Amino acid sequence: MAEKSYVLGFDYGTDSVRAIIVDGENGEEISSAVSYYKRWKEGTYCDPKNNQFRQHPRDYIEGLEASLKEALKKAPAGTEKKIRGIAVDTTGSTPVAVNREGLPLALTDEFAENPNGMFILWKDHTAVAEAAEINEIARSWGGIDYTKFEGGVYSSEWFWAKILHVLRRDEAVRRAAFSWVEHCDWIPALLTGRTDPLTMKRSRCAAGHKAMWHEEFGGLPSEEFLVRLDPLLKGLRERLFEKTYTSDVPAGGLSAEWAQRLGLEEGTTVAVGAFDAHMGGVGGEIAPGSLVKVMGTSTCDMLIAPNQEMKDVLVKGICGQVDGSIMPGMLGMEAGQSAFGDVYAWFKSLIAWPLGLLAETGKIDKAHAEELAESVSALIIPEIEKAAAEIEPGQSGLVAVDWLNGRRTPFADQRLKGAVTGLTLGTDAPALYRAFVEATAFGARRIAERFEEEGAKIRDVIAIGGVAKKSPLVMQIVADVMNRTIRVARSEQTVALGAAMFAAVASGLYASIEEAQKALGSGFEAEYSPNPNYVPVYDKLYQDYLAIGNFVEEETNQK
Amino acid sequence: MAEKSYVLGFDYGTDSVRAIIVDGENGEEISSAVSYYKRWKEGTYCDPKNNQFRQHPRDYIEGLEASLKEALKKAPAGTEKKIRGIAVDTTGSTPVAVNREGLPLALTDEFAENPNGMFILWKDHTAVAEAAEINEIARSWGGIDYTKFEGGVYSSEWFWAKILHVLRRDEAVRRAAFSWVEHCDWIPALLTGRTDPLTMKRSRCAAGHKAMWHEEFGGLPSEEFLVRLDPLLKGLRERLFEKTYTSDVPAGGLSAEWAQRLGLEEGTTVAVGAFDAHMGGVGGEIAPGSLVKVMGTSTCDMLIAPNQEMKDVLVKGICGQVDGSIMPGMLGMEAGQSAFGDVYAWFKSLIAWPLGLLAETGKIDKAHAEELAESVSALIIPEIEKAAAEIEPGQSGLVAVDWLNGRRTPFADQRLKGAVTGLTLGTDAPALYRAFVEATAFGARRIAERFEEEGAKIRDVIAIGGVAKKSPLVMQIVADVMNRTIRVARSEQTVALGAAMFAAVASGLYASIEEAQKALGSGFEAEYSPNPNYVPVYDKLYQDYLAIGNFVEEETNQK
Repeated sequence: MAEKSYVLGFDYGTDSVRAIIVDGENGEEISSAVSYYKRWKEGTYCDPKNNQFRQHPRDYIEGLEASLKEALKKAPAGTEKKIRGIAVDTTGSTPVAVNREGLPLALTDEFAENPNGMFILWKDHTAVAEAAEINEIARSWGGIDYTKFEGGVYSSEWFWAKILHVLRRDEAVRRAAFSWVEHCDWIPALLTGRTDPLTMKRSRCAAGHKAMWHEEFGGLPSEEFLVRLDPLLKGLRERLFEKTYTSDVPAGGLSAEWAQRLGLEEGTTVAVGAFDAHMGGVGGEIAPGSLVKVMGTSTCDMLIAPNQEMKDVLVKGICGQVDGSIMPGMLGMEAGQSAFGDVYAWFKSLIAWPLGLLAETGKIDKAHAEELAESVSALIIPEIEKAAAEIEPGQSGLVAVDWLNGRRTPFADQRLKGAVTGLTLGTDAPALYRAFVEATAFGARRIAERFEEEGAKIRDVIAIGGVAKKSPLVMQIVADVMNRTIRVARSEQTVALGAAMFAAVASGLYASIEEAQKALGSGFEAEYSPNPNYVPVYDKLYQDYLAIGNFVEEETNQK
Repeated sequence: MAEKSYVLGFDYGTDSVRAIIVDGENGEEISSAVSYYKRWKEGTYCDPKNNQFRQHPRDYIEGLEASLKEALKKAPAGTEKKIRGIAVDTTGSTPVAVNREGLPLALTDEFAENPNGMFILWKDHTAVAEAAEINEIARSWGGIDYTKFEGGVYSSEWFWAKILHVLRRDEAVRRAAFSWVEHCDWIPALLTGRTDPLTMKRSRCAAGHKAMWHEEFGGLPSEEFLVRLDPLLKGLRERLFEKTYTSDVPAGGLSAEWAQRLGLEEGTTVAVGAFDAHMGGVGGEIAPGSLVKVMGTSTCDMLIAPNQEMKDVLVKGICGQVDGSIMPGMLGMEAGQSAFGDVYAWFKSLIAWPLGLLAETGKIDKAHAEELAESVSALIIPEIEKAAAEIEPGQSGLVAVDWLNGRRTPFADQRLKGAVTGLTLGTDAPALYRAFVEATAFGARRIAERFEEEGAKIRDVIAIGGVAKKSPLVMQIVADVMNRTIRVARSEQTVALGAAMFAAVASGLYASIEEAQKALGSGFEAEYSPNPNYVPVYDKLYQDYLAIGNFVEEETNQK
């Protein structure tokens, strides 16, 4: 019997990192473990009121070691010797300032407690003003519009806006920062000991979707553009990168130091890193024409197409189109809704307000009241979904717009807000909840239409992520509204599974991602087909959604 | 010492009738008692799903006797001998089919259980189709537009629409109905024994605001118009009435039969009846230029002006302008919001939804859970008002529209619905509650502006009704939004007090309503002045309210 080959994925999420060990032959999960970021959990370097969210590199390092240690403990003895390849995915854009050696500044004594020397988490919105300047100058400076492959709108969540914001605010960091590195690039660099910022292998997806890198531009935006943006950026371009890599390429071999620290074999292949959603797309078995929707608190909607097919097409209003960003050799396109599951969670906490009054009645003591409030809270979503499922489409007369966290796609605009029309004295909580579910489904349809309006074909829809797994009501409504069948991936860890697929290809177990998907893919656990009776009803309501959205947008633009 | 003179008011509300005995010299309340309608409480003749709300005449008779008996029991001995005058107010339009003798059909054996032989309560909306026909024909038939003194839009809540609906649906009633009588006309007729439909004294306010009666038309709409509407109406006009009366005029003296039944003196003056809101306006000390707002579940907004001043003015989009309808000798104008306190009650029950899950937790038994849910419910409004009071105007970014029960004024349109914009993931229940309070205040401002746009002057604002008494938050917001000082009447029973004033004038204790107001009025208990810092903020938000309202209206009209 041949020796088993395992692959290892590290999936860095917003709150924790997960290590997963997968059988390289059939994709079976051997073991997995999660480690939460200690400093992050305590909120130490964050200022939520000002949308500042920073993560300390020590959280990442400790999480890496702890999660793997735990996963190995749960796995059969000897597993550590059979691991052939490692791949890493992270959130993004989550950049950090590094010194000449590629060390994040917060790992040096001087900056150990300075949030500006730490990773600037994807959801940090401190750089709103800088993003607006980038958009303004990109459109008006007379040269190339460097935002054009990023949907035409640069976001405050992205690389350059964040760098510029910190450089302007923190002179010490400005002096000490030799270069800047994305989280997904730094972990593989660390593991392979190749941390020199000038030669470190950088991820195509991070560079292309967030840093305005494109082959057509000869790499990053020109020095002239960057200096026009702010003279503080002078010289930085040549200390960043010119080349970028897809994750089927090795970043290097596991260094002696890290092999020892992790208990793995020295030289084990470590793949180039990538963003979590993109590896999730691969784990969810994305293929040309398959729209993969990561449905969680927000959504990330990914579509790939042969480069040739999209040669002259620029999909406006999405979050970017980059060769190889999702699947090597294919054009990767990304879009998304900035609030999805978050909308349902919001509605729940809106109507949970009276539970805070339980103790005020004087009929129940405080501890008991809190316990009871928690028990009721846990029932709200399952129970309201049951009630909402009884309501026919169009019956309530309600139509809502889902921009409760701004709009990501189409045409990103953080200023936009949500709305609801059709309220009557008979409107109850289940009807209103259903209206907000429908609103998120309309938002999903709008994204699919944006792709197709520009000539990108969608042949089928695949869903991954927490909401896809947990809410048949939401999934059925999305299928009805989009008038498309949606398949839900079976794996509980699609993102980590995608990382494992990249590890398998980078380490030579398979010749291509397509082959790895075939061998390791988990298949689908559910399929939601549109109800033909509801499709025409939702076609009409969708027109109302668009009309309300137009109204909101016009009002916002007049302010 | 001169003998005391008392006056007696009967105030027929939606659920109960109140008898109140007042000192005719100073307005002091001697005693009062309420009696609930027995059959109504059981919902016997109603069909809420189809908006059918009927009240049995026996409920009115039994309530009359029970409430007075109880009031007399609470009053000093001998009180019944000192009552000089009686006046009655009721809801309206609440008409009933009567036979040749003026007996409501439900008081005959044949129709005792037939809802079509009972009073059709103001909020019965079964006649929507008939109201639409009246509006259609009034505008298109080539003759006088008989809706013109009723704001230009005839409502399904009114006299002719209800009559036509019943005549079309119920052949037996059609054969037996000699004439039709409003609730406010029937009680005085009953008490005075003058029930002949041809000579019964009919109320000016009911006739003018609900039956398209106007001096300019020579009374009711012409036979030609009515037959054009439906040949079933042929001949009815001459079995109704030509003359109408204000409530300072006696309807007659208390009959021997009713003097005995009630234990009062035979011949005691009974005034012509009127609608509750109008008598409430008088009780709230309405004067020319005073906008009196009855603020309850809905609002009724009343304004009076010297007839001469308004000679050539037709205020479009309100609910009517009728000489003497509120104050004898003055033009009475009426407008209103179809949902006011109802909006707050709706919000409360919306967010109270999770309280229904208390027992589902398994941590508390059903009886205990229900009791706890009730206790929390009772705290929601007071606690959420405290939290909402902490929010600055404009701070939440929310703007709502208050048409949750359609729009009454301006330009009645039952199809319109409520809306809210500016929702974010940070929107919590107190902020949303405040937005709906502001929405009802914007609706109040829109009504005041409608009056003034057409040349009717508002000099001051007086508030009566439950919300005015109970919610300082709502009152302050209305004052800030309207940029007007609002005084709240002191009396707990302004409507019944108004009836007592009419009883006092009809029985000769005072020469005019103005004199009776001066002697019997309760004055004001509170005054809300606009906060100058908030006025400009609300000026801006009000523009948003109008814009959202226009959008909702255009969308509705396109359907």
